[in-house]
Amino acid sequence: MTRWRMVIVGIVTVALSRTLVAFPDAAADKAALLKVDEAFSADAQRLGVAEAFLQYAAPDARMLPQGKDVVSGRDAVRRQMAGFPAKATLAWKPFHADVAGSGDLGYTLGTYELRTTDETDKPKVSYGKYCSVWKKQSDGKWKWVVDVGTSSPEPKGN
Amino acid sequence: MTRWRMVIVGIVTVALSRTLVAFPDAAADKAALLKVDEAFSADAQRLGVAEAFLQYAAPDARMLPQGKDVVSGRDAVRRQMAGFPAKATLAWKPFHADVAGSGDLGYTLGTYELRTTDETDKPKVSYGKYCSVWKKQSDGKWKWVVDVGTSSPEPKGN
Repeated sequence: MTRWRMVIVGIVTVALSRTLVAFPDAAADKAALLKVDEAFSADAQRLGVAEAFLQYAAPDARMLPQGKDVVSGRDAVRRQMAGFPAKATLAWKPFHADVAGSGDLGYTLGTYELRTTDETDKPKVSYGKYCSVWKKQSDGKWKWVVDVGTSSPEPKGN
Repeated sequence: MTRWRMVIVGIVTVALSRTLVAFPDAAADKAALLKVDEAFSADAQRLGVAEAFLQYAAPDARMLPQGKDVVSGRDAVRRQMAGFPAKATLAWKPFHADVAGSGDLGYTLGTYELRTTDETDKPKVSYGKYCSVWKKQSDGKWKWVVDVGTSSPEPKGN
């Protein structure tokens, strides 16, 4: 190979690799983030809601709870989740995810079921939907930076 | 300049420009998105809340209104916002923004004031906070893809 050919091959190789870095597989990124959110819900059943929320929280995580002020930072998340009823369970399932081209920021949307008991210890189910914003941390793991949910009517067919 | 020097200068120029494209100014991106959200609130005062929500909505915009099902797509956003009381005003101010490294996805968090009237036509103010997720469209404009808010207590000092 002549020197010129080597230079041209080098330039093409660099250009291709930069393009691949700049445009990662968007579908794979979305599928991966959906899986993280699903694992988060599974861990909430296994470890408890409060512990799972902490394990998946970024250091600068913020919650926007209904009727309360913004909850900002892991310590505040711990205090907020300490108020979660011991006997209650919260399970959710994302129905949509999107991830930035750079693969470092994304969000999931999903629906949740909150199972509690009323004053007479009778089981009670509440429904809702949520948005979680996720940021990839320096160790490559997705952690949530925003958690916000709102109540929904009981799904049709239930 | 020899041919080799020209080749080296060319490679360095390409590498630098790719690096600048791959790592845009994160602080400038956040400041720009905060300004878009502030302009959105200003337009809500100028054009009305319903019209501003539509003008800033991406084609795949989703709202997560309290007590209702997910509102999905511009037509559904139009129907949802048609229910906004004619005499009410909604003003907001973001307190935080973050944007992906690729500059194509970001979110803002802020607080809002909803001014309505009660049954006796007496002015009434409600407070809340919100998360908006934004996606840069093919024309380079930021449009919101997720809008979700929750009520808050009256701010201290009011």
